[in-house]
Amino acid sequence: MTRTFALPTSSRRQVLDITEEVAGMLAKTDVSSGLCTVTVPHCTCALYINEHEEGLLHDVLTLVGGLVGGEDWHHDRIDHNAGAHLGATLLGNSVQIPVEGGNLVLGTWQRIQLVELDGPRHRRVNVTLISD
Amino acid sequence: MTRTFALPTSSRRQVLDITEEVAGMLAKTDVSSGLCTVTVPHCTCALYINEHEEGLLHDVLTLVGGLVGGEDWHHDRIDHNAGAHLGATLLGNSVQIPVEGGNLVLGTWQRIQLVELDGPRHRRVNVTLISD
Amino acid sequence: MTRTFALPTSSRRQVLDITEEVAGMLAKTDVSSGLCTVTVPHCTCALYINEHEEGLLHDVLTLVGGLVGGEDWHHDRIDHNAGAHLGATLLGNSVQIPVEGGNLVLGTWQRIQLVELDGPRHRRVNVTLISD
Repeated sequence: MTRTFALPTSSRRQVLDITEEVAGMLAKTDVSSGLCTVTVPHCTCALYINEHEEGLLHDVLTLVGGLVGGEDWHHDRIDHNAGAHLGATLLGNSVQIPVEGGNLVLGTWQRIQLVELDGPRHRRVNVTLISD
Repeated sequence: MTRTFALPTSSRRQVLDITEEVAGMLAKTDVSSGLCTVTVPHCTCALYINEHEEGLLHDVLTLVGGLVGGEDWHHDRIDHNAGAHLGATLLGNSVQIPVEGGNLVLGTWQRIQLVELDGPRHRRVNVTLISD
Repeated sequence: MTRTFALPTSSRRQVLDITEEVAGMLAKTDVSSGLCTVTVPHCTCALYINEHEEGLLHDVLTLVGGLVGGEDWHHDRIDHNAGAHLGATLLGNSVQIPVEGGNLVLGTWQRIQLVELDGPRHRRVNVTLISD
């Protein structure tokens, strides 16, 4: 089943730790063992799993901004957010986490991160849980 | 179960919207709620989910071409398509979409895109549907 | 169910083919048709699926090193491995492979690759198998 939660973002570009929200969705189900797939139904934000350290969050935004910056993008003639679409395309809009014993199987430092690239906006996150 | 469809590409580099084909595979099953995983069994094409706007498709190819261009790649001594392999590695060869009410759960502007990086070729797409 | 195997890496940066290990985990189960999701519970290594050709493995490390190099990263003030975190973020920490007839559905040249970006270390790989 897929359950959805919403969250507001507050900046143009921002990284938000959504691990607790995803774990909360899992806790409301009786899925003990299986797979958790998290997706965002948006084209200008993304998901990834890595450490939540303030300097590193800054670095992720710097990296993505650098990779998609400095070009005269065609999409900017339609809507002024080509860089946000391209950054989301590079990072991707889904992550997967195994579920064991009713818990997300994440490494010690791993956290589920939502990357806002065209905020502030209201974002939705879909959590799909499959029991094995 | 995994169902497969094939499609020809017509250019060296090209982005093709395969959303209708994937939805068509889902419609042939009785999966009402669960997870759809789309994969390509190729090393020089990729998948992503984002908006299908002509300018943006051009920008995605420009971005990927720029990121993997300008180097003297070792693989080019074996086969002259290192950039296609590297672009596919950056973008990835799979996407995931929740299924609810027998439909793909995609955002308003989200479309499933196949990126040809070494065409024209005949490509295959695998659609794996898991019911929850 | 999720099964785990461990493997040591021997270099700072290295690409390791883990296809046989993943196939071995699948062979120990009775999953005939479904989905295999492979994840790493680490923040400085990554997974991708592409060809295992020595020149190309070198190129992948060159590409990632180039994309995340040359910046004064904030995370380096905490721990001297920001580039490894950022490379892992770009490549991602999971891959998906359909399962049919008890076998991984991979293209002719596709291999599952683990990218060590901050080794040598002992790494763990989680293989989650969902039967449909």
